[in-house]
This record gives sequence, structure tokens and C-alpha cells, in this order.
Amino acid sequence: MSEKKIPYKIYLEEKEMPTAWYNVRADMKNKPAPLLNPGTLQPMKADELSHVFCEELVNQELDDTTAYFEIPEQIRDFYKMYRPSPLVRAYCLEKKLDTPAKIYYKFEGNNTSGSHKLNSAIAQAYYAKKQGLKGVTTETGAGQWGTALSMACSYFDLDCKVFMVKCSYEQKPFRREVMRTYGASVTPSPSSETEVGRKILAEHPGTSGSLGCAISEAVEAATSTEGYRYVLGSVLNQVLLHQSVIGLETKAALDKYGIKPDIIIGCAGGGSNLGGLISPFMGEKLRGEADYRIIAVEPASCPSFTRGTYAYDFCDTGKVCPLAKMYTLGCDFMPAPNHAGGLRYHGMSSTLSQLYHDGLMEATSVKQTDVFAAAEQFARVEGILPAPESSHAIRVAIDEALKCKETGEEKTIVFGLTGTGYFDMVAYEKFHDGVMSDYIPTDEEIKSYTDKLPKVD
Amino acid sequence: MSEKKIPYKIYLEEKEMPTAWYNVRADMKNKPAPLLNPGTLQPMKADELSHVFCEELVNQELDDTTAYFEIPEQIRDFYKMYRPSPLVRAYCLEKKLDTPAKIYYKFEGNNTSGSHKLNSAIAQAYYAKKQGLKGVTTETGAGQWGTALSMACSYFDLDCKVFMVKCSYEQKPFRREVMRTYGASVTPSPSSETEVGRKILAEHPGTSGSLGCAISEAVEAATSTEGYRYVLGSVLNQVLLHQSVIGLETKAALDKYGIKPDIIIGCAGGGSNLGGLISPFMGEKLRGEADYRIIAVEPASCPSFTRGTYAYDFCDTGKVCPLAKMYTLGCDFMPAPNHAGGLRYHGMSSTLSQLYHDGLMEATSVKQTDVFAAAEQFARVEGILPAPESSHAIRVAIDEALKCKETGEEKTIVFGLTGTGYFDMVAYEKFHDGVMSDYIPTDEEIKSYTDKLPKVD
Repeated sequence: MSEKKIPYKIYLEEKEMPTAWYNVRADMKNKPAPLLNPGTLQPMKADELSHVFCEELVNQELDDTTAYFEIPEQIRDFYKMYRPSPLVRAYCLEKKLDTPAKIYYKFEGNNTSGSHKLNSAIAQAYYAKKQGLKGVTTETGAGQWGTALSMACSYFDLDCKVFMVKCSYEQKPFRREVMRTYGASVTPSPSSETEVGRKILAEHPGTSGSLGCAISEAVEAATSTEGYRYVLGSVLNQVLLHQSVIGLETKAALDKYGIKPDIIIGCAGGGSNLGGLISPFMGEKLRGEADYRIIAVEPASCPSFTRGTYAYDFCDTGKVCPLAKMYTLGCDFMPAPNHAGGLRYHGMSSTLSQLYHDGLMEATSVKQTDVFAAAEQFARVEGILPAPESSHAIRVAIDEALKCKETGEEKTIVFGLTGTGYFDMVAYEKFHDGVMSDYIPTDEEIKSYTDKLPKVD
Repeated sequence: MSEKKIPYKIYLEEKEMPTAWYNVRADMKNKPAPLLNPGTLQPMKADELSHVFCEELVNQELDDTTAYFEIPEQIRDFYKMYRPSPLVRAYCLEKKLDTPAKIYYKFEGNNTSGSHKLNSAIAQAYYAKKQGLKGVTTETGAGQWGTALSMACSYFDLDCKVFMVKCSYEQKPFRREVMRTYGASVTPSPSSETEVGRKILAEHPGTSGSLGCAISEAVEAATSTEGYRYVLGSVLNQVLLHQSVIGLETKAALDKYGIKPDIIIGCAGGGSNLGGLISPFMGEKLRGEADYRIIAVEPASCPSFTRGTYAYDFCDTGKVCPLAKMYTLGCDFMPAPNHAGGLRYHGMSSTLSQLYHDGLMEATSVKQTDVFAAAEQFARVEGILPAPESSHAIRVAIDEALKCKETGEEKTIVFGLTGTGYFDMVAYEKFHDGVMSDYIPTDEEIKSYTDKLPKVD
């Protein structure tokens, strides 16, 4: 098909939208290592996990052989409200960079949660409702996941209790207010509402909180309240499964125009966006049907793939969660206070960790000010004000396109634009004022945390 | 075509997008009254207006006979980055209201300016660039127009100087920061940078500013700086012309599925969104080809259509602009401090004023807390967090749908959802906390301003 016929935005029709999620683990020869019970060091069984998670989600979490899970009709109907998301041809960015590369981005920011997080939130709320639960608990850092879950719970008339990292709670009152619009209860973490919260407050008075700590509180609140379960917005296999809708739509849109990407780029915090975007492409790669360069981009201030250790670790600071085998900086690691936006989790999805370990994808890290420079450049030509998280992928997409300019190669680059930056203007302001710093943890710092990894093998 | 085949979102294809704007004045028997020179009380001529506005925009402003203006290719290319906007079937809202009415909304919020304002901003920036200008000045209240113009100027590499109403400048630092991301300079108004600003500051020390005052400053800054012109985001004929893209897309999307609306609803401040949305439908009505109920919705705290006087008035507080014949509350009128969001202009587009005067459309006003109740209800079922402005239209759309529920009528309702409320969370918070008030101006208050209208006839 001729180049000129590719529109600025490729939208699938409703009838072309995916009807099943794709489970990349089904095609992996080396399966991701199982979650372990921290007491017995034995793989977690369904009945142990179902105290914490909804039953059907536990099944999805443990099933590494079923390739496709049908998307229930009520979830597909909800998806139709804000999906399909556009696959955008970045004509203006290409022109500005004067590159022969063809750049596409899958834009997940056109919904009120402002990110891809809604794709899994609505699925998790659906299964909680189906199980007859009263409500769910969760944690949120920058607030995108909490907002997404609030929207999903409001839709299914479920209670939603969000533990929000205290510094975000104070610095992002607007995010908090959006969650309130959707009827959620939002508690700054650490709080005195949970045992683990009280313990952390006693040990670290005046702490501004962390994601790992908020997870511990949310898990405790769920397991100690009748009719509640805990839900998580990233890292888990079930979340990557739901997020595969991003990759499936992307692939369908590309196939429609006969486009084959050379490079696929996504930002990586816990891995939900990246895992979702690359799933069907990685599936082809695993089955030997196609080859792609796949690049995970993480912040230099929280470099789990590029500087972490591949080992079993706790998923949370409070050490109440199972152990997961992953690239980790240690469960007590926290990015420096100057770090803006999300992508601040100490570990990485087990599935992506295994794929990276097996050499099926690359990873790179980028400095914060370079990320914001890319964000601003992108905003000015493509119109969209990107989230700091998404801008990690923009940075590397621009760098790859500039390499094409040097070599003259007409590579096709696809990246995930996970969301918008409307609630991140404090960080943009720091960047404009030249007071944003690029602190990167030293080897000694990282070692001080990874030295404390639990002994498993 | 069967009901079931209508998707949640109707997107036009790129090739179905409008290639010309529609000028509703061409089909009006009673043309809108001309702008008058406040000194001579004679109709403003092109050469007088071109000191303030770009030449081609002056032509568009004065031309009330040409029905279609071709959209220049560079503007159409920019439109392709964020348009066509979706026409959404509000299935979830219909279900929640349990109404036989069919509700559609044209959603203009999926771009970084967060509203429809970008449609005219890019056109005005294009003509400024074409004329070889260095930059443009403007005013902004809630910040949507300023953001839109910043984006447009950044795209065409023009300087952009925004006078932002001081209370918004202080209360909405994030909007300011978005404009800065796009390279605009933002000055709180009244400022000491202009003569009119210094005069207002001397007369009203400590004033928090008004839109009318910011307009005066922006006009002075434009006319006193070489290579600059002034641009305005609403009220003017040229703006309604550019915004006709909203209505043309809406009509094309409806026609594609054979849908004929019974009621068309839009919020009205200066009239740019409403005028754009209704243009092609009003054209049919004027030509006797079809009939529609058309409803303008304004805030009870700034009720120019429903409680204003139809007369010549100044467009700005500083009285430096031409006189326009319009429904007005008097150029010194300001809505009460509790009034949230935009829709705070004292007057109304001359074109819409004439159409309303001729009985071709209706107008109604709604109370602020009723508007926010509708906003929250809408957000919870349709997912989108609406702007306070847009929520005026939601309120009346819901009310009309509930009337259908009583009568059993299956009316088709179309309303304009002009934008998102991400930067309006302070107002949402007041609503949630029950501290939002519904002050409505008394007849005496309004009369105190309209008594001072300039004597023209």
C-alpha cells in the first residue's frame, strides 16, 4: 500500500477490536519463575493467593499455558467508551527531526485516568464484582492507577479504597480530587489505619511514604476486611494479560496498512505498558515468525533492568507480599526525591524479567532532564503534552530516529505513548526553571539494598 | 440503518473531514449588525480593523455573503493531528437515566488545549504567519484559549503573548505552565506593561482582573508593537467560522448513519462552541430544509442571552475595542467570584444574538451546583471528566432526556462536550465539600450595568 495513504491516526473499527487478551507466557519456552510463599519458599498456590486476589484473577495469574483469554462482554463494552486508542503516525515529529525513519505511537492517554492503566482496572473491577465482592483496595503513586481504578469501581458500583503515597497525596491534590469525583476513598500512606502503616510511622516518623509501603497497607486492608480483595496496577502477569489489548490493537492497525515495525519501544516501571504493547510481537518472535528489536526504557534514577539483580525479592517494602523472581534494586530501594512521575518501582514484571534475561529484548536507561527535553520537543510538534513516564519512550524513539538520519535507514519505529502530563506540571515547571536534577544512584547505594535480598536458592 | 449498528464512537475517516468552513451569515436574511467605530459610530472598515487583526481574518470577519471558505492545507494537516473528534453515542448515560432518548455528544476535549479552542487558534496563527507577522497577543481567562493559541503559535513558530486574568494566573499555575511548555509568554492582567493596565491598577488597586480588562491590554500590546496583531478566541464572526468544523463533522457523522437530531444543545459564553456546533444545522433551518430545536445554555451567574439587553456595547472593559450589537450585561459586568470556569463574558456573539433575536434558537440558564451534579453523574457513567463549561450542556441534555422518559418520546439529542476538566479540580473540590455557592445577580445589579450602555441608536 502506498505510503501516502497512511492517515495521521489509524483507528480500528469497533468490530476490529480484540475479543481476547493474549497471554505471552503460553509461547515462552522458559516460563517466568513462580511467585513463592515467603514463609515456606514454595510456589504460591491458588488458594493461598485467593485470600488476597479475586479468584478468576488468580487463575489468570497462574496460567502460563493458555494463549488467549476471552474478554468478557461487559469489559468489551467499557473498552468501547475509550478504545480503540489511535495509532498515530508522527508525521510532524519526523519532519521536525528530518529523519527518513517512520515513527508511530500508540496513544493511551485519551481517557480520564490519563493512561493505559484503565485497561486492567476495568478488568479487575469486573472480576471483583462477578465474585460478589463489596470492594477493592489498592495503592497509587503518581495517581494514574488510583484514578483508573476509581473510574472502574464507579462503573461497577464497587467500593474503592486507595492508599496514596503521602508525598503524592500532598503534592497532587487534583489527582486526589479526580478519584473523589469517582467516589473513591483516598488515604495518605503510611497511615495509622493499618498495622504495617503504624509500624512504618513509628520507625520513620515524618516519612513521605513509598509505593512499596502503600502496597503493604493496601494488602493488609484487603485481607483484614470482609468482602474485599487487593488489586495491583502493574508487575503481575494478570495485568500484562489485560494490557495486551494495547499490543493487539497496535498490531491490527499496523497489519491493516501492511506495516512491519523494526523497533518497538516502551517505558518500563513495573512493566504493564511495555508488556502489553510488545506481547503479540514478542509472541511472533518466540514462535520464530518474525523478528523485532524491542527496547525497554527506564529512568536512570530507578534502573532495575540495567543495574538491578535478577533474583527473588519481595514485591513490597512491608514484606507482606509473595516473593517474585525479577530484576530488582531491592525492596527498600526508593528513587531520589527529585525523581518525577511514576516508573519508581524497585522491581520489574517476572515475565519481562525472564524475556530480558533470555536476550529477547534490550533495556536502556535515560536521564530525567533528557526525558523532559524530549517531552517538550514532542509536545510542540505533535500537540500532545506527554506524561513524564511516556516521555522516556519518546526520548529513545527520537534518538533512534536521529540514528536513522545519520545512516539514511528508513526504519519503522513504534513506541507506546502511555499517557498525558496534565497532572505533572510541577515537574515541567522545574524543568523550565532549570532546577530539575539528574541524580543517579551510585553502585554502593544499589548494592546496599541488593545485599539484603532474601536468600532463596 | 438498524439502531444496533451505531458504534459507541463515530469517527469520520480523514478523507471525510471538511475541506471548507461554513459561514452561516451567508444564509441569514437578517444579517448580524456590523461592528461600529466607537468614535464615529460608523461601521468599521477593513483598513481600520486591520490595525488590530490579520488581513485575511478581517476579510472573514466582514464577509457575510460567502457561504464556504476553503480550509488551507496546512490547517487541514494540523487538524488531522487531533481531528476528526469523535461523535459519541452516550449508551451508558442513556441506560443510567433509563430514557428512551438517544443521546450523542461531540467531544472536543481530546487535545492538549483541552477544548475546541484549538480549531480557531490554529487558523488565526496560520493567517498571522502567512502575513509575515512576528507574533500575536491575546487574553485568557480559564486558560483554554491561551493554551490553544500557545500550541498553534509554537507550531507556526510565532511569538505568543498572553494576558491572563490575574486570579486565574494565581489559581491556575498549571495552565500557565502548559502555555510555557509551548513557549508562550504569560503576563498576569492587569499589568503595568500597558497604559490601560496601569490605569485600571490605579483605579482598582488589588483587583484580581477580568476578561474584559485582559482584552484591552492585549489589544494595546498588539497595536503598539511592530509586527504584532491581536487574536480573540470567541465572540467574533471569524471564530464562529473556524469553529464550524465542529458542526460540519457532527453533521457528516450523523448523516453517515442516517440520524436526524431533534434537539441540539451547546453551552454559551461568547458563543464560539455553540456557533460552531449549530452552524450547518442552522443553515438548513434558515434555508427551510430542516427544523431543529437549538438550545443555548448559559450560567445563571452570567446570563447574557436570558437576562441581558440586545444593544450595541463595547467588547471590552477598557473600551478600546469596536462596538458590537449583542445580548449584553454591560461591559463592566463580572460574574460573582464563586463562578467557576469560563462562560464569563458579558456579551454574546453578534451572529448568535441576531439568530436568538429572530426566534431561531432558544436559551436557558442553569445554576452552578446543578451543573456540577450533572458533570459528576456524566463522569461516572461516560468516563470523561467534563469541563465546567461543557457541563452546562450536559445538564440540559440530561434534563431533556428525563423529559423524554416521562413522555416516552424517543428524541435524538446532540450536545457539544467542549472540553475536559483536568484543570478545574479546585471547583470540583468545592462542589464535593458542599461549599460551592449559586449566587445569581439581581435585576438591580444587571440594570446598574446595562443602564450605562453606550447610546447608539
